[in-house]
Amino acid sequence: MLDKNTIANDFKAIQHDIVEKLTALDGGALFETEIWERPGGGGGESKVIQNGALIEKGGVNFSAVYGKLPDAVKKSFKTDQEDFFATGVSIVLHPHNPWVPIIHMNIRYFEMQGNGNETLRWFGGGIDVTPHYVIEDDAKGFHQFIKNTCDRSDPNFYPKFKTWADDYFYIKHREETRGIGGIFYDRLTPESTGISWEQIFEFSKNVGNSFVPIYTQLVKNTREKHFTLEEKQWQFQRRSRYAEFNLVYDSGTKFGLQTDGRIESILMSMPPMASWVYDYKALPDSAEAKTMALLKKGIDWTGS
Amino acid sequence: MLDKNTIANDFKAIQHDIVEKLTALDGGALFETEIWERPGGGGGESKVIQNGALIEKGGVNFSAVYGKLPDAVKKSFKTDQEDFFATGVSIVLHPHNPWVPIIHMNIRYFEMQGNGNETLRWFGGGIDVTPHYVIEDDAKGFHQFIKNTCDRSDPNFYPKFKTWADDYFYIKHREETRGIGGIFYDRLTPESTGISWEQIFEFSKNVGNSFVPIYTQLVKNTREKHFTLEEKQWQFQRRSRYAEFNLVYDSGTKFGLQTDGRIESILMSMPPMASWVYDYKALPDSAEAKTMALLKKGIDWTGS
Repeated sequence: MLDKNTIANDFKAIQHDIVEKLTALDGGALFETEIWERPGGGGGESKVIQNGALIEKGGVNFSAVYGKLPDAVKKSFKTDQEDFFATGVSIVLHPHNPWVPIIHMNIRYFEMQGNGNETLRWFGGGIDVTPHYVIEDDAKGFHQFIKNTCDRSDPNFYPKFKTWADDYFYIKHREETRGIGGIFYDRLTPESTGISWEQIFEFSKNVGNSFVPIYTQLVKNTREKHFTLEEKQWQFQRRSRYAEFNLVYDSGTKFGLQTDGRIESILMSMPPMASWVYDYKALPDSAEAKTMALLKKGIDWTGS
Repeated sequence: MLDKNTIANDFKAIQHDIVEKLTALDGGALFETEIWERPGGGGGESKVIQNGALIEKGGVNFSAVYGKLPDAVKKSFKTDQEDFFATGVSIVLHPHNPWVPIIHMNIRYFEMQGNGNETLRWFGGGIDVTPHYVIEDDAKGFHQFIKNTCDRSDPNFYPKFKTWADDYFYIKHREETRGIGGIFYDRLTPESTGISWEQIFEFSKNVGNSFVPIYTQLVKNTREKHFTLEEKQWQFQRRSRYAEFNLVYDSGTKFGLQTDGRIESILMSMPPMASWVYDYKALPDSAEAKTMALLKKGIDWTGS
């Protein structure tokens, strides 16, 4: 049986590897490290970059926390178990250039133990991309890459987790998806997947290790692209939708707020600058209108 | 007995009066009007100003909606009644100048009718101020004015509703109040107040009519004040807290999202530009640090 400390250690190694490679990719600023402890148990290591050459604001966080489950979480998990352990790596990067997408990746492991009950445990995670302007070839390339990563573990994973991402990263009150999706999965166990704990852990690490090659490819053709003030303003507007999703719907943010997590780490995903314009309507046939038309569920990016 | 149409009409008249006077006060832009219908019943009139001389973005909305209560709302109201009617005026103004505060005012009336049950009804509302920089004399003047308005109806109202505002406009995860508070009240009935429906309605209209003199006074000494880029950046950061409060905690926003209200009207309160800076710490003894020290509950602004 997998040990939770092994999982936490491997996750932390993935965080460090990503930070090292992102530092090289950015080339303009260093990540600042903050090691923090959670009053109720455990802690984490936040790595944040601001005003880099590529990244305007981004965070690569690791945490391993434990303690008593707050009542609100018990209720939403429909459990009366008391003790929990959670570890994960979470990334959100907001680039300067509006042609570079926002990217998010998360891998996590959760377990609960109760009074004489068996231990409940599962893996969750995902990776998804939120372009300010959707570039269709880049969207296809991203989905194909993450599909290949999934296929190495189980050919059923990509279609299932891609649909899950479409449903999860959905801004209901706007009737639009947050971006072009990707994969999202939760509560993976041998029972729910048909593969072993070790294989699920391997899959989880593969998702984590897919982050750098995916992001490197996405920024390659876009980071030096010229952009106008109007395109930057559009980026601010798209970021406001990102803020809405994270504050209104995101489970990780809610869990963090409910468990008294470190607030600056929980909200490191929030955009460096965002704008809400009243009742904005993109001009017909504009790049903005084309992007809006692609923020919907069920697009088959891999042509499968 | 008060008729709901009388209430809605008087509220709408207050909206129109405020818009007329704010247009004169701003002097640089006009409000745009959008009349909208709610698919489930009723509708409203949104009045929004953008890029005025004083106001960067603001809305003065009226709505009168009715229909079936969504399950989520029934649950939070702890009722099994089916039909509701709600009318109100809601204002949020974001000024250009960081020395001018954000202001919010809301007056509302709500009723529910069920299968053979009696009608439940109540008034709610309030007015509160969110300075980017707290100016203590202005904070005192505002609290004294709204205390006087309350005292005309009941000397117990101000202390009770001031405390209610401190508790309501609290950003728990930041451990700070949204601003310097004001008054907040809900579920006012003859039983809960000891005054008649007519007197409660009168109080509600007095709160609505206090808006223009209060805001006029607040902008008088601040709208022409010189500000720096650093002060504008601080305004963006304070606005991000305003966005957090509205999306995470505000009941009106939640009710609007749950009842499929018109999304642009519900979220007209969102700031035109907001910034999340990672782990910002105000410099000791700075104006920013002084403001942060005053964003707490229980400050006695009227020296009572």
